[in-house]
Amino acid sequence: MCSLDAPTYGSQEIEHFTFEEVAFMDKNNTNPPRGMKDRTPKEVELREYVQNKIVTVYRRFGFVKIETPCVENIRFLSSGEGGDNEKMIFKILKRGQKLVITEKSKQSDLVDLGLRYDLTVPLARFYANNREKVPSPFKVMQVGNVWRAERPQKGRFRQFTQCDIDIIGMSSVFAEIDLISATCEALKNIGFSDFKVRINDRRILREIAKLSKFDEKDFGKLFITLDKLGKIGIDGVERELLSCNYASGSVSMFISIISKIIGKKVTTKDIRELVPNIETSILEDLGFVVKNIRNLSKKDYEIEIDLSLVRGMGYYTGQIFEIESNKFSSSIAGGGRYDKMVGKILQSKNEIPACGFSIGFERVVSILEKLEFKIPKTENKIAILFNPKESKFDNLFEKARELRENNIVSIELQRKNLRKQLDQLSKQGFNYFITYESGVISEPRKIEIGSSPSIYG
Amino acid sequence: MCSLDAPTYGSQEIEHFTFEEVAFMDKNNTNPPRGMKDRTPKEVELREYVQNKIVTVYRRFGFVKIETPCVENIRFLSSGEGGDNEKMIFKILKRGQKLVITEKSKQSDLVDLGLRYDLTVPLARFYANNREKVPSPFKVMQVGNVWRAERPQKGRFRQFTQCDIDIIGMSSVFAEIDLISATCEALKNIGFSDFKVRINDRRILREIAKLSKFDEKDFGKLFITLDKLGKIGIDGVERELLSCNYASGSVSMFISIISKIIGKKVTTKDIRELVPNIETSILEDLGFVVKNIRNLSKKDYEIEIDLSLVRGMGYYTGQIFEIESNKFSSSIAGGGRYDKMVGKILQSKNEIPACGFSIGFERVVSILEKLEFKIPKTENKIAILFNPKESKFDNLFEKARELRENNIVSIELQRKNLRKQLDQLSKQGFNYFITYESGVISEPRKIEIGSSPSIYG
Repeated sequence: MCSLDAPTYGSQEIEHFTFEEVAFMDKNNTNPPRGMKDRTPKEVELREYVQNKIVTVYRRFGFVKIETPCVENIRFLSSGEGGDNEKMIFKILKRGQKLVITEKSKQSDLVDLGLRYDLTVPLARFYANNREKVPSPFKVMQVGNVWRAERPQKGRFRQFTQCDIDIIGMSSVFAEIDLISATCEALKNIGFSDFKVRINDRRILREIAKLSKFDEKDFGKLFITLDKLGKIGIDGVERELLSCNYASGSVSMFISIISKIIGKKVTTKDIRELVPNIETSILEDLGFVVKNIRNLSKKDYEIEIDLSLVRGMGYYTGQIFEIESNKFSSSIAGGGRYDKMVGKILQSKNEIPACGFSIGFERVVSILEKLEFKIPKTENKIAILFNPKESKFDNLFEKARELRENNIVSIELQRKNLRKQLDQLSKQGFNYFITYESGVISEPRKIEIGSSPSIYG
Repeated sequence: MCSLDAPTYGSQEIEHFTFEEVAFMDKNNTNPPRGMKDRTPKEVELREYVQNKIVTVYRRFGFVKIETPCVENIRFLSSGEGGDNEKMIFKILKRGQKLVITEKSKQSDLVDLGLRYDLTVPLARFYANNREKVPSPFKVMQVGNVWRAERPQKGRFRQFTQCDIDIIGMSSVFAEIDLISATCEALKNIGFSDFKVRINDRRILREIAKLSKFDEKDFGKLFITLDKLGKIGIDGVERELLSCNYASGSVSMFISIISKIIGKKVTTKDIRELVPNIETSILEDLGFVVKNIRNLSKKDYEIEIDLSLVRGMGYYTGQIFEIESNKFSSSIAGGGRYDKMVGKILQSKNEIPACGFSIGFERVVSILEKLEFKIPKTENKIAILFNPKESKFDNLFEKARELRENNIVSIELQRKNLRKQLDQLSKQGFNYFITYESGVISEPRKIEIGSSPSIYG
């Protein structure tokens, strides 16, 4: 059976009750909803640090930030451009008189809104809604939560943060250079090095498919299979294509071309030989981007043309790119050109050129967590311990205020067991304490840093 | 008829189709969902500026940030502690096999999750779920979106940002002092001055009600009516109470006590005379908080006991406070002690002391917008204009990178009409431009600041 018909990952149709789910029904369970996470202070601190490092670079590149509601009208989320994500929408029940439940009610009768599953569809709607007000090109960044009712699994959450930059209204590859260089600089700013940009163009993949005599209507499925190359290998790709009953001649031709390029650094000259009918401007543009990014990289990172790069989404129309961490052999950013999507969502006849790049924020954060990355500390954290039975507090709050000009200062009730209290304070990241007795304030004393793990930064 | 039975503001039961709603059904309409807003770059910039000013102060006071999912299991949102907010929940449809629609289906059969309507209920759940890991007291801050299906009206949105600090696990009024002084400092840090802290204690209100011989079961409704004092005046309050068929003796006694205190600065001594049975420690605590906040204020702001202060929510158990901008005569922050709520939500037998203060983030932002507040600029914003027909770009990207160390730098395609382009760039906040021709980069030249309104900062 052709496995392409099955969803590539858990969609809502195949959601079952699990032990976790049953436990969650227990009245005393105080977990967040299934697949979602409470973030402790330490986690929030790291997430904000990373976000700040990324956003600083994007700002310097001239990207401006917009925000759209987390909720969208359901019709925007169901335009078809969202692919499999549209199967994973958290849908919101109609309210008041609009909600009429009968036996014949379909899901679609009951809902009018949904939680967004990405930031690209809302961006297209924003662009349409504010077209008169935004400049062209529109260089825009978004950082926000998105929701997908995926089957929960390690490293995949049902609420997660996306971090996107997009340029709308620029057809030239200067947009691609801007996006790739901004993203690479952002990753460097977080502290990442040793990464590689892989770049391809969907139009080259289409040429290869044409050359192999595949039907244009099969291109989508063909590319989805090719996308699995890293996981199932070239033999796996061949087997899967044959199982789909494509002409065996087409499959063998396609596989033979792909075999030639796997793991090879190809040049635009190689591509010309491989697919002689390719439009010259496509290769020139690809070469132009590679050359300029390579110059800019100063060998801090690499860029390579990789003809086996596909990128999952159906909407890409031109160059596509992905950044891979060499050390963690995982993809940490991805994007590409999608010249048709914005126009389609807006039901416009005209194409609106657009190109975007998205950092895998959750991936980046989890890599840093694995590395036990420590955020550079710039402030002291001081606890002022006082006995609430004291009668005088004349200068306690005033003293705290003075110290706060350069430090984090928390006023804390003194406990009987000072040693235990200092240990707890140290776990919260305090490195100094002051005592306050009979109106006299002590000099700050150092708290030894505890070695116990903590949820504080 | 007793108007207390009617909801104080639009709940979902009375939602009707409006012209806006009908327009929204139009297929070409690209508005965000009803009552929600797209935020332009200029708006986002101001919001982030304000948020940053607030959070900086809270951090310095030793509050740590947590994050909970925007979505909660519906049973946490329906515990009764949310009051009227529970009528305004955006509910999320069950997914997959869990969703069975029949004629008999009630709303509650169809939903398992909901969007949070405040940050306090999620905080209580977080606290329960992470009790082992968090210190006591837990000084915590949250900044996040909440959703309420209110009838949209000026200044009220269905998605809006809350900005809360809470101290869980501290029964002494040092918590109140910490929260009030942190909030006042945060407002000062945004640039607010000329504001007043109004403070009261729910237990004093209860004593006044007891003294007037109201039934304890009527206290809730009584306080809700009293809360309208500012809007409907003392006569209005009296009329409303009489229409509810309370004993006329109780109403006249209550009104006579309240009349004595309206618009008067009362001292704890006055309160003692008014309600002789009040517990001494309640007055001592109130006096202690007022004295210390007054000392700390250095006359930058005021603090006053106001016995007519009620605060809407039912869950307050002790001191309550509100900050009012004198200039805008509107409330910009509110909070109080709620010692019973956390325990109740956790279905625990024990009280867990808690106290919180919330800045009216949307109100603060809208005041600044009305004042046409300008964010102090620290960076230049430079546009590098180039002609894409140039053949040489050797140092264009490199030059941009160098300039980005201290400036915002965007590479832009040069248009035929330079004047028009500079005008547009100026609206985007650019103050310098550089031209790039035949590989030669010009010195930065100043762009005159356009006077046209713009959505850019």
